[in-house]
Amino acid sequence: MIINIPENSDFSIHNIPFGIFSTEERSPRIGVAIGEHILDLAAVADLDVFNFNTAILEKETLNDFIALGKDITKKVRRDIQIWIQDDNSILAGKPELFVKQSEAKLHMPIAINDYTDFYSSIEHATNVGKMCRDPENALLPNWKHIPVGYHGRASSVVVSGKPIHRPQGQTKPNADAPPVFGPTQRLDFELEMGFITGKETDLGDSISTKKAEDHIFGMVLLNDWSARDIQKWEYVPLGPFLAKNFASHISPWVVTLEALEPFKVSGPQQDPEVLPYLKFEGDKNYDIQLEVGISPEGSEEQTVCKSNFKYMYWNIVQQLAHHTVNGCNINIGDLYGSGTISGKEEDSYGSMLELAWMGTKPLKMKDGSERKFILDGDTVTMRAYAEKEGKRLGFGSVSTKILPAKS
Amino acid sequence: MIINIPENSDFSIHNIPFGIFSTEERSPRIGVAIGEHILDLAAVADLDVFNFNTAILEKETLNDFIALGKDITKKVRRDIQIWIQDDNSILAGKPELFVKQSEAKLHMPIAINDYTDFYSSIEHATNVGKMCRDPENALLPNWKHIPVGYHGRASSVVVSGKPIHRPQGQTKPNADAPPVFGPTQRLDFELEMGFITGKETDLGDSISTKKAEDHIFGMVLLNDWSARDIQKWEYVPLGPFLAKNFASHISPWVVTLEALEPFKVSGPQQDPEVLPYLKFEGDKNYDIQLEVGISPEGSEEQTVCKSNFKYMYWNIVQQLAHHTVNGCNINIGDLYGSGTISGKEEDSYGSMLELAWMGTKPLKMKDGSERKFILDGDTVTMRAYAEKEGKRLGFGSVSTKILPAKS
Repeated sequence: MIINIPENSDFSIHNIPFGIFSTEERSPRIGVAIGEHILDLAAVADLDVFNFNTAILEKETLNDFIALGKDITKKVRRDIQIWIQDDNSILAGKPELFVKQSEAKLHMPIAINDYTDFYSSIEHATNVGKMCRDPENALLPNWKHIPVGYHGRASSVVVSGKPIHRPQGQTKPNADAPPVFGPTQRLDFELEMGFITGKETDLGDSISTKKAEDHIFGMVLLNDWSARDIQKWEYVPLGPFLAKNFASHISPWVVTLEALEPFKVSGPQQDPEVLPYLKFEGDKNYDIQLEVGISPEGSEEQTVCKSNFKYMYWNIVQQLAHHTVNGCNINIGDLYGSGTISGKEEDSYGSMLELAWMGTKPLKMKDGSERKFILDGDTVTMRAYAEKEGKRLGFGSVSTKILPAKS
Repeated sequence: MIINIPENSDFSIHNIPFGIFSTEERSPRIGVAIGEHILDLAAVADLDVFNFNTAILEKETLNDFIALGKDITKKVRRDIQIWIQDDNSILAGKPELFVKQSEAKLHMPIAINDYTDFYSSIEHATNVGKMCRDPENALLPNWKHIPVGYHGRASSVVVSGKPIHRPQGQTKPNADAPPVFGPTQRLDFELEMGFITGKETDLGDSISTKKAEDHIFGMVLLNDWSARDIQKWEYVPLGPFLAKNFASHISPWVVTLEALEPFKVSGPQQDPEVLPYLKFEGDKNYDIQLEVGISPEGSEEQTVCKSNFKYMYWNIVQQLAHHTVNGCNINIGDLYGSGTISGKEEDSYGSMLELAWMGTKPLKMKDGSERKFILDGDTVTMRAYAEKEGKRLGFGSVSTKILPAKS
């Protein structure tokens, strides 16, 4: 190893995720997280080791790099794995190629063209149905036939660390009185994973479940912020709008599908049988452990949720096949969110709405305070990692501090 | 006049809309439609008449031009109006600056970042509610309080003239049988106008109704294609998804707000009173006449709808104020659709769903055939123009031919 990688680092030799970073000396460019460092790919390019137009390594987003195609991006990742493990490699004795993460600023890794959010956890959909609609018929009739999804707002997807103000909007707290305007009283996180597409299609083309992975570059952690009271009033009949589009946060490092390959597992049995275009072969779920912590202002973090990406009823190849079966075209750098990832256990629910069961079961924080929803000054942090047979990798975190509503 | 402008041309001296065109000799660049010609702005720039970086006139989208700001883009439009009317102007005797529209190809005028679709016609929302929900309570409780909207798919917004294949998807034609997969049986147009933003905001910022017009560059005609059977099965609870994202077409010329200023009128009385952030001063509706025609393959066009943009209950400044009141940021080149524009009269409804009243009142075509929805081989064409006190301008058309579903 030509660089020290701490044990249990998210950014192990098995990971090699791509991101955008800047330093005081130099503007945003492409890097790879390794241990507590970032390998500066634009600087590596000066060693004349890459067989592509390395000007794209100086770009402020990964889009053009991803557009090179998997043959190239997979080779870059494999080469880096070899170079780092070989004490005599071309990277050896060149500490200037490695920037400390603590001395770098991380940026949005992707210029997102379109953002779609699915609703693919059966436990989450069931919990929401029980609380907000009919406990006896919690799951809607279409849910087991369609990977239900909707379009989100791409402009307000931002990178971990960017604080946001509590959103304001219209709500109707009293059924017998007119709606009112003010800061949301029910600010919530949604624990999600998102995949990023890496190969575009033309309008009219579909992607089969068999080909879907060829079109997916990698994954990030996603916090799809929600304002439950705004949502309740606005969402019929056209779906969530201002309740969601004030912000969604993603983790800064994009973990490739290649890195995640060892962590594939089978998903839940799908019953009833799905239509042919949604059938797939092989394991398409991923065993990725997820957790969420809340840090009240000036207080220690309290873990409030432990979930797992493997719980998803609908997997990513089904999501992409469904999204394109009507000919909807995809671009490089689209983001596709999983929907809130809840498990069966009460402490595995991926939102405050479910964890505190619509405010009826407040959560205790370490400072003694209680939470039904997220309060001003709270920092919400999500983490994700996968571990199997001595291989471990992680996504780092996606973390957001909530500031008071703007006056 | 240094160029002939036919009487009743959409592209009169009062219009001066911006778009992207190419010729056999030269790649896409910015032009202005005038009569039956296009003024090649990249070529005009060679006369050294513009005080900005004219390289942006060679771009394949209007985004960077719009980003110059209204002070500059308004001056460009005014200068062109003066030059064209002055026989001794700098454009005189230079026919090479004018390209015949019939010899040019028109392209997508904008790189669209985000596409939002509103639902702002009270007649349309009422008709849909009567047919699909409850005739007695057709309008949902939130409708008169919120300019209801949702996010659409930006990638599949394409320019007039691009044919599309009939989309396929899941539907549930029989309540007692499982869903089926196949081509939509209820392909529909939606007659809409869309505005394009010209000035961005930061995440967390809101735009007041007073400032909204500063952020709007101009408008286009929009056909927001819909598959009603797919929509019916998929849309609860998160709204329309595959029923809409297979394609939306816009007209190629962006008509500026300045050009539309003379056609402002007051809108419908809003009752109940709206919340303060949705209040506005002055006339914010536009008297723009709209029509839709259907041409069956090899047959003459039949006009099926005559509507008017002035019918909108919620206006564009209210839409933008609502969209951003929670801090959702906007970018240059976002598209915001009005929603289907229906009037009170049966022949003013802006969709086949309403015109043929869910298939119960088929429309007669000139070739004797009937239409409940749109058939393969049909070409749907929308047109829009405004006329007042001798001033006339139009949007040209947005026209799409429907090809059979891909096998």
